[in-house]
Amino acid sequence: MVKKSGTEKSKDKAHLKSKDLIGIRELDRSEIELILETAESFKEVSARAIKKVPALRGRTIVNLFMEPSTRTRTSFELAGKRLSADTINFSANSSAIVKGESLRDTGETLEAMYADLVVIRHSAAGAAHFLANVTDLSIVNAGDGAHEHPTQALLDLFTIKEIVGDIGGLKVAIVGDIAHSRVARSNVLALTKMGAEVTVVGPPTLMPADIDSMGARICYDLDDIIEEVDILYLLRIQLERQKESLFPSIREYSKLFGLNKERLKRASKDVIIMHPGPMNRGVEIASDVADLPQTLITEQVASGLAIRMSVLYLLLGGE
Amino acid sequence: MVKKSGTEKSKDKAHLKSKDLIGIRELDRSEIELILETAESFKEVSARAIKKVPALRGRTIVNLFMEPSTRTRTSFELAGKRLSADTINFSANSSAIVKGESLRDTGETLEAMYADLVVIRHSAAGAAHFLANVTDLSIVNAGDGAHEHPTQALLDLFTIKEIVGDIGGLKVAIVGDIAHSRVARSNVLALTKMGAEVTVVGPPTLMPADIDSMGARICYDLDDIIEEVDILYLLRIQLERQKESLFPSIREYSKLFGLNKERLKRASKDVIIMHPGPMNRGVEIASDVADLPQTLITEQVASGLAIRMSVLYLLLGGE
Amino acid sequence: MVKKSGTEKSKDKAHLKSKDLIGIRELDRSEIELILETAESFKEVSARAIKKVPALRGRTIVNLFMEPSTRTRTSFELAGKRLSADTINFSANSSAIVKGESLRDTGETLEAMYADLVVIRHSAAGAAHFLANVTDLSIVNAGDGAHEHPTQALLDLFTIKEIVGDIGGLKVAIVGDIAHSRVARSNVLALTKMGAEVTVVGPPTLMPADIDSMGARICYDLDDIIEEVDILYLLRIQLERQKESLFPSIREYSKLFGLNKERLKRASKDVIIMHPGPMNRGVEIASDVADLPQTLITEQVASGLAIRMSVLYLLLGGE
Repeated sequence: MVKKSGTEKSKDKAHLKSKDLIGIRELDRSEIELILETAESFKEVSARAIKKVPALRGRTIVNLFMEPSTRTRTSFELAGKRLSADTINFSANSSAIVKGESLRDTGETLEAMYADLVVIRHSAAGAAHFLANVTDLSIVNAGDGAHEHPTQALLDLFTIKEIVGDIGGLKVAIVGDIAHSRVARSNVLALTKMGAEVTVVGPPTLMPADIDSMGARICYDLDDIIEEVDILYLLRIQLERQKESLFPSIREYSKLFGLNKERLKRASKDVIIMHPGPMNRGVEIASDVADLPQTLITEQVASGLAIRMSVLYLLLGGE
Repeated sequence: MVKKSGTEKSKDKAHLKSKDLIGIRELDRSEIELILETAESFKEVSARAIKKVPALRGRTIVNLFMEPSTRTRTSFELAGKRLSADTINFSANSSAIVKGESLRDTGETLEAMYADLVVIRHSAAGAAHFLANVTDLSIVNAGDGAHEHPTQALLDLFTIKEIVGDIGGLKVAIVGDIAHSRVARSNVLALTKMGAEVTVVGPPTLMPADIDSMGARICYDLDDIIEEVDILYLLRIQLERQKESLFPSIREYSKLFGLNKERLKRASKDVIIMHPGPMNRGVEIASDVADLPQTLITEQVASGLAIRMSVLYLLLGGE
Repeated sequence: MVKKSGTEKSKDKAHLKSKDLIGIRELDRSEIELILETAESFKEVSARAIKKVPALRGRTIVNLFMEPSTRTRTSFELAGKRLSADTINFSANSSAIVKGESLRDTGETLEAMYADLVVIRHSAAGAAHFLANVTDLSIVNAGDGAHEHPTQALLDLFTIKEIVGDIGGLKVAIVGDIAHSRVARSNVLALTKMGAEVTVVGPPTLMPADIDSMGARICYDLDDIIEEVDILYLLRIQLERQKESLFPSIREYSKLFGLNKERLKRASKDVIIMHPGPMNRGVEIASDVADLPQTLITEQVASGLAIRMSVLYLLLGGE
């Protein structure tokens, strides 16, 4: 399934080092490239009339989602089904799984049921790592608190590579609530590993303390930087956070950091707009901007399927 | 799979004209007959020990239910599985999908995931039509507000045809809250297209303004008409509507329009009783009437499966 | 699939007498042995890389869970999938299915959809029996009120047999809220049928009136009996019951009946500890005791899968 890259070196590295995908931080560049190349070959499967390969027949993949997420769960479920795996949705109510001990018990239960791989989403940073440590299951992190969401970053890389080509040297601005965003965190790590220059943009109250160490520039004013970027990556605003005092009003946020046609005029004609979805139209992105051809949201969704097929395949015995 | 009808004309028409099934209004009589004939050949599949044909292997069918409906969702899910399709339940919480724009985003997401067909239930009339217009997905309307529920009407036709034979000339009374019922609307259209004479029966406050234009007679007193009908079709009373002032009390409704053994004595011995389920026993139908052999509720459920297999098959490339 | 037992007698009995599995009470010893032997041969399937056999291809198994239970539902769902059956989750909200009549309507609906087997969990004792009586469906009781939970008891037998060997003559203490526990009830029946000596242990307020008739000794003080038992079976405490006045405080319960290392010192070195899961660590079982090698909780989960595959297979035409 994996495209041969043609070099001796990549031949030796044609597998992931870990049984798990916890974060972009743990992946080296050659692993990222392997996932992207494998996704390339799976993208074609979903475009067929019969969208199915027998690669993971008889394997059991469990979606353990302890935060609601229809889109990501559906993407993983479809990825599993198209690889012919059996997929199970184990949507534990978070009340039953509040303490680490209890999460371990859930993991051990799934292991005893001979699950092969667990896709976990959890409100606590570190939940995926914890589960990977206490079981022999393959764990894929589908978002853990404000920590990481690695398949999101991988699908974003895949999308950029397909549309632009080489990621090295690209200037990317990630705009929004950086402090609380696992998407931001994973994307900063992934993009810089691939040689892009990343700037995170948002109000000072929504900036994390440790962003420097990830290798991103910080900017508090979108208009200062919009002219020079190749990619504008807009984060979804969690409207429910507005209650917290550190968040500006939606209206103020939208005025300062929302992308509308007026603001977009100042950007390069070739600028690419990305968003992890689902969008709040009229908040972080104006509705007419969301529908521009240079806005790649549906491309990102399609990439998500290919990336998740690739990750499931590689972790469960691909080569 | 499709039974040959033997005429040149039907041979040319052995497909549905649209990629979608939005309402009975959009179907012509030959299309209805094609769906019924195809269902006939699928009915036999469910009666086998191995209830499965490979017709839609590798296709992806998404159940997008934004109103709760275990029965209809299960019927579509089983229909998909018995055709070997991959089925996904995407039960969006309605809060996330309140505006049309947002429904479009959901549709585009599913399209980007290479879904082939979406079965949608939504509280807003026109939701299925809207989704069909903004995406290239095949859309099957599983109920949109008070507009239509076409597979319900098709399964009712199928049931009548199996039990009675020819639908032309039959006298059918549809009894209940006509104004708010998509089942009533789709059935009036379907039955009249097939040549039946339909009367809608209910209190004046529960009659829609436009029922004349659909070709149904109106009657406000069930006892006026019960003697002359071949089929009594009882609608489910939405008990939650009782709060609205236009609805009579349950007790009063049941007394005037409920079907009990006493009232049934005045009907023809051969009268057939239908109900879309789930029943409110003791409200629109007395419990002992529900269990009579001439009450076809379980036959309707069985027909539902065959009809949904037929519709999925025809929309996804059957001939 | 079934291991030959080698005797003429068991050859004749190599099937279950009923179409349903309602309770342990209805099974005779040879049927229990048949289920255990069949489970033995299925245990190996889950340990394969391709965890799937075509035994029930094209069959439809419905999980009708009217009480939340992620673990048991997942275990049955996986068992069905690994036998290649189509599995459907029909999680009716209990409000729709409050009266027996309504449960019958649900059963008739599933029967009309040509389901083959329904796994039911319901808050009312007798619900599974009722459904088995009013339909021709095969019914598996996955827990009905405080009545029975037969697959739990069967998986417990299977686990004991695997670890200890012969069940006859073993001394088993079942500890907890005996009065409200279907697990206790099914296990007392199953263990005594297999020749074990069972003692139920708990505070007087949590003892049922009819426990004598099941053949178990009663004991109100765990410390009186702990030295002499081979197996300590700890029930899950339903924390939500604490509101009822008959329940002691959690702290008091834990002190008198919880298993901690201190208390465990008085038991035999070879004592085996079991629990149906999920555990309340720190309540009925101390966390360090839960993690001892002699505590068989994950083994019980693994056995559950094999037992459920066995039951589904035998009821749906195994021999």
